[in-house]
Amino acid sequence: MIEQKKSSHTKIDSIGEFTLINHLTKNFSSKQKSTIVGIGDDAAVLNFNGNAVVTTDMLIEGVHFDLSYMPLKHLGYKSIVVNLSDLYAMGANASQVLVSIAASNRFTLEALDELYQGIKLACENYGVDLVGGDTTSSVKGMQISVTAIGATPKSGPILRKGAKENDLIVVSGDIGSAFMGLKVLEREKEVFKVNPKNQPDLEKYTYIIERQLKPEARKDIIKLLSELNVVPTSMIDISDGLSSELLHICKNSEVGCDLYENKIPLDPQLISVCEEFKLDSTTIALNGGEDYELLMTISQKDFPKIKANPSLTVIGYIKDKNSGCNLVLRDNSSVALKARGWGSKED
Amino acid sequence: MIEQKKSSHTKIDSIGEFTLINHLTKNFSSKQKSTIVGIGDDAAVLNFNGNAVVTTDMLIEGVHFDLSYMPLKHLGYKSIVVNLSDLYAMGANASQVLVSIAASNRFTLEALDELYQGIKLACENYGVDLVGGDTTSSVKGMQISVTAIGATPKSGPILRKGAKENDLIVVSGDIGSAFMGLKVLEREKEVFKVNPKNQPDLEKYTYIIERQLKPEARKDIIKLLSELNVVPTSMIDISDGLSSELLHICKNSEVGCDLYENKIPLDPQLISVCEEFKLDSTTIALNGGEDYELLMTISQKDFPKIKANPSLTVIGYIKDKNSGCNLVLRDNSSVALKARGWGSKED
Repeated sequence: MIEQKKSSHTKIDSIGEFTLINHLTKNFSSKQKSTIVGIGDDAAVLNFNGNAVVTTDMLIEGVHFDLSYMPLKHLGYKSIVVNLSDLYAMGANASQVLVSIAASNRFTLEALDELYQGIKLACENYGVDLVGGDTTSSVKGMQISVTAIGATPKSGPILRKGAKENDLIVVSGDIGSAFMGLKVLEREKEVFKVNPKNQPDLEKYTYIIERQLKPEARKDIIKLLSELNVVPTSMIDISDGLSSELLHICKNSEVGCDLYENKIPLDPQLISVCEEFKLDSTTIALNGGEDYELLMTISQKDFPKIKANPSLTVIGYIKDKNSGCNLVLRDNSSVALKARGWGSKED
Repeated sequence: MIEQKKSSHTKIDSIGEFTLINHLTKNFSSKQKSTIVGIGDDAAVLNFNGNAVVTTDMLIEGVHFDLSYMPLKHLGYKSIVVNLSDLYAMGANASQVLVSIAASNRFTLEALDELYQGIKLACENYGVDLVGGDTTSSVKGMQISVTAIGATPKSGPILRKGAKENDLIVVSGDIGSAFMGLKVLEREKEVFKVNPKNQPDLEKYTYIIERQLKPEARKDIIKLLSELNVVPTSMIDISDGLSSELLHICKNSEVGCDLYENKIPLDPQLISVCEEFKLDSTTIALNGGEDYELLMTISQKDFPKIKANPSLTVIGYIKDKNSGCNLVLRDNSSVALKARGWGSKED
């Protein structure tokens, strides 16, 4: 490591693939009981007593991240978190990840080291083992593909399709902030292009920027639900936006819903930044995405268990299918809930 | 589908992400008993009685494939096969895959349909379920990431580290052909650039080109070994080249080896094409890669069970570590075995 610090621009293509993998993963150790064989063979060997859950996601430079304001360590951390979030959304735990990285020759070994520091930190914080992956060159930019694996709870996986009429719609944390964090970062990038000497004062945006650059998956909520003895009837994580995710639950469960605009939990910083940007905070919360909060439905009988909890907010309830999916506005009028999304055409 | 045939250039970005996933995966159905929940929730739910094996690989346009001679259907097929090969190399079966695709706006819906036709054909031929994945846009080109999952055999996974002194080194099929198939395709591409009207006569290269464009994973060998009641002491699939893979086995098993040049199984077409290209066929077989044959070590006591089998060839034997890893040439002289690889710097 001392040699590397002397020369901080080691070309990746000067290193063999296997040396590179060994270098990047040498500080990772497997801690999960279910990890039988980790990195270093044709495949990892995992043991699950019962059902396993598996999910995979791809992050593409220029589409999902911009390295001009996303530090590589944060990117590594986020690439793990967004996948774990999908497992927690099944009510599952997370125990292993496989990480594949394609990087152009613009990236040095030191850059990949930073990325893997973030991956390692996420693995440690969430208690998951890195058990495999692939490292390859790319023609342009960086592409990251992560697969995450866990075990379902004894009560079974929580799917999108279990919501029943009269169930309460509940969301963890607050939403919309990650998207506005991105808007601030994009604005500062434009300012920087015009005047590179300008030192941005981002202090009043700290929370929303952190929500964008270093999101956390709500492992704690799964633990909390277990402690409260609440099994959601359906659950999904909010990656594309509250509207889009709620519509997924309603479609898969064949139900309708009323979502109350005035119940959507917003951070005060989000509200003030939306005012600054002259954007409607409800629209941002509904369509922003990347919150990685959990959206769930719970039976009315479980309401007393959750009502005092600051991490969970009731934002509406499930109706029969014929009622449709509605957003109830502050003046009590009702409009059809649409999944517009930002940046991509959803349906 | 009739509508799509009328307009054969549907822009991907005119379709929402979820519509696209639904469209591409609508003809896939889950058949494996271990698939509890397939595509359509936050994660797939799988059931394994015992250990699961998991592997992942990334294929990058311009690095791993060139669409000027690789038809998309073949690419889809190959992207599945190369991952299944890693599972068979553990002696495991293969039961599920997750496929993530990033594609630039140069690709139409019809192009992705072709790719998925190949993926579907591979899933059918190998009896695996598509249970998840991701579809996203890319800034440039196409990137494919596949994760494959299976169950280990009751006798346990066959690792790289089990080779013992005096074990026989055995390889399935023949090797080197996939690499020379690529050389022929690359040559024809250059000819085409100079004279696009030239119709290449590829008939005498059929076998080696097929080995490159439509490789198969040796699921049949796993079945054969089971029928012959042979449990290899170590196994690996040949993706990077025979030398490199044999060195992996020796390093992980802490042994040496003698590999006999004159025993390496070569197809007659490979030999004649190597002559045409003035390349040494042994060098190609050792370093070519992409054969997806299985390289294994077996105990001497199992030799009678395999000796008459045309699918398996004994190419050498395992020695103690101090003997080193050697290639025994046709004149009985011996040189150190090196993993040079082609195109990438291995170590």
